Amino acid sequence: MREVAIIGIGQTKIHEHWGLSIRDLAGEAFFAALKDANRESIDALFVGNMLSGLIDQQNNLGAVIADWIGFKGEAIKLESACSSGASAFRAGIMAVAAGEIDSAMVVGVEKMTDAAPTEVTSALATAADSDWELEQGVSFVGLNALVMQRYMHEYGWKHEDFAPFSINSHANAVHNPYARLPFAINKEQYDKSGMVSAPISLLDASSIGDGAAAALIVPLESVRGDKRAVQILGSGAATDTLSVHSRKTPLFLQAAYLSAKRAYDQAAMVHEDIDFFELHDAFSIMSALSLEACGFAEEGQGPRLGLDNEITPKGGRIPICTRGGLKARGHPVGATGMYQIVESVQQLRGECGETQVDGAKIGMAQNIGGSGASIVTHILKVS
Amino acid sequence: MREVAIIGIGQTKIHEHWGLSIRDLAGEAFFAALKDANRESIDALFVGNMLSGLIDQQNNLGAVIADWIGFKGEAIKLESACSSGASAFRAGIMAVAAGEIDSAMVVGVEKMTDAAPTEVTSALATAADSDWELEQGVSFVGLNALVMQRYMHEYGWKHEDFAPFSINSHANAVHNPYARLPFAINKEQYDKSGMVSAPISLLDASSIGDGAAAALIVPLESVRGDKRAVQILGSGAATDTLSVHSRKTPLFLQAAYLSAKRAYDQAAMVHEDIDFFELHDAFSIMSALSLEACGFAEEGQGPRLGLDNEITPKGGRIPICTRGGLKARGHPVGATGMYQIVESVQQLRGECGETQVDGAKIGMAQNIGGSGASIVTHILKVS
Repeated sequence: MREVAIIGIGQTKIHEHWGLSIRDLAGEAFFAALKDANRESIDALFVGNMLSGLIDQQNNLGAVIADWIGFKGEAIKLESACSSGASAFRAGIMAVAAGEIDSAMVVGVEKMTDAAPTEVTSALATAADSDWELEQGVSFVGLNALVMQRYMHEYGWKHEDFAPFSINSHANAVHNPYARLPFAINKEQYDKSGMVSAPISLLDASSIGDGAAAALIVPLESVRGDKRAVQILGSGAATDTLSVHSRKTPLFLQAAYLSAKRAYDQAAMVHEDIDFFELHDAFSIMSALSLEACGFAEEGQGPRLGLDNEITPKGGRIPICTRGGLKARGHPVGATGMYQIVESVQQLRGECGETQVDGAKIGMAQNIGGSGASIVTHILKVS
Repeated sequence: MREVAIIGIGQTKIHEHWGLSIRDLAGEAFFAALKDANRESIDALFVGNMLSGLIDQQNNLGAVIADWIGFKGEAIKLESACSSGASAFRAGIMAVAAGEIDSAMVVGVEKMTDAAPTEVTSALATAADSDWELEQGVSFVGLNALVMQRYMHEYGWKHEDFAPFSINSHANAVHNPYARLPFAINKEQYDKSGMVSAPISLLDASSIGDGAAAALIVPLESVRGDKRAVQILGSGAATDTLSVHSRKTPLFLQAAYLSAKRAYDQAAMVHEDIDFFELHDAFSIMSALSLEACGFAEEGQGPRLGLDNEITPKGGRIPICTRGGLKARGHPVGATGMYQIVESVQQLRGECGETQVDGAKIGMAQNIGGSGASIVTHILKVS
């Protein structure tokens, strides 16, 4: 299995793009990445998307986007709910690592704002267990609220203890021109924020949006010496029960642990080696759970990292969501995993300005589908 | 890139399975393949499915099925409309060939009959171009009817000239216990069959259904000497414009040509080396187009092979649809590509009884998504 690297990245601003179709968005990210890589062609296209069938009445999105960009080679869509982006990235890695192809463009794309909010809520709910969760009337936010409620009860945290996660994400998004919500929030705003599904308030929840992000994967040997290249050191994926209620330990993200372990092992690293962590803060409770499952905090102690100021890009022990995270950069579900990859590359290239993690050499990105059912973790390194 | 082989296969009967959910179906095929392989575990699960989001209100199907079978490793869904099955198969090949994992179970599954027929027609239409085809009101059958109409006009064929394709598929399905429509039809029935969308009659069109088929992929070196192992010699995928009207030559399946060429090249073979061809006869016109694009007939001459009795398992120059094809084995869309693989393995193992192709050593399977937009071709060989 040969080593692989990322040589180009591209992204669109996450927004309500009324004037842009799903093709336009994907094309914009695709061509930005191609230009960034200084390439003119690719061998294959991998697309991460969750909802185009339900929201855009369009399946076969690999062919759709290939058609739009004028490509006739292999093009395929991967779907694992909100971790579709990272799943597509992993498939691209496999194909190049296998030697089957010499370049794989991976595009994560989602166009969500064409549908009514209730339709989007219903569509997102298909990430949960249709037979055993949705049938009970629980929404996806509701499921996460149950987890957060139990977590607070079990470990004695108050709602306000989760504030640093949202405050950090919003503070970082201010400096990200592609972010959906590029404004800062403070503790008072967080505390006063209206409840969506108790104890999840508006400022605990990520924002949906339209967007696309892309990265070009090539063999490492072909870009050795290129300082813009970023090596993919580790890649792991794992699953857990689809229903949260089926888990013996619903407060521990077993699939995050397993996929991170796989990535750590491949990279021959431990969590202390990670300089920053683009985690999946769909809801602030998920930030805590991800940090715990990946070794950065003891079980039940994730919020402590926020309260101790350890998650910020400047001086934090483990900076997270350095470009705004799902909370403030935005969460166009099937595209999110690729935004995390693109942002990790920006950090490793030293392009993040105000939120640059000084001396960042190793970054980790973790993308979650369902309420922890599908989790994909990647470790990237300055090449 | 290491060589890979199939060591186990499983399938369910294609049917209106009122009592079985999509999980049940996938699980049945999965465990049948695991048992056939005489294994107890797998490293990763790849799922091919097109419509679970639209018809079953369930996305994240990789995790759904992993959960059902009690597996916590990597599980991911691939979708490329009706070629989802073969796309998942190809992803499984890449992962094992790369050396990332040592066993990949690929399951193609579709549960279609829970929805009303009009809903299914709408859902299937998402394989076509939502913006430029569906908006005009054309259904998926309608699109194929336009292609068939033009083909008959261009090359001078009559409707009855396509009869041998359907007659062959139905004749072969009689001997396949898993087939959806295991009964023979004759020329008179074909000629009298009611029109669905002229010139496509009921007996030109494949039948939808519920079903699942699975195969376990392992490194070839691990099963050398095992006579039940079937080597994967070639794998190719390609795309074409999503809209049929965008193609310069709408009567030539460019993506079939490209994907078959890639598979032939990998296998170091030409079409004369192929002993049987499990092609994608979603509509009888597609049989003609596939045979032409893959080199078995000149352009516009595909129907001649049927009329000359060259497509039957016993004595035909290029037997096709030896287990009934999409027409009579049935077409549970995202599962179909895996049925083709499973049936090819059965042929290469010599397990096909009445429709066994004598001395079959090399088989080809081709799975089509959209009206020729996504095409995946595999070449398999007795190991």
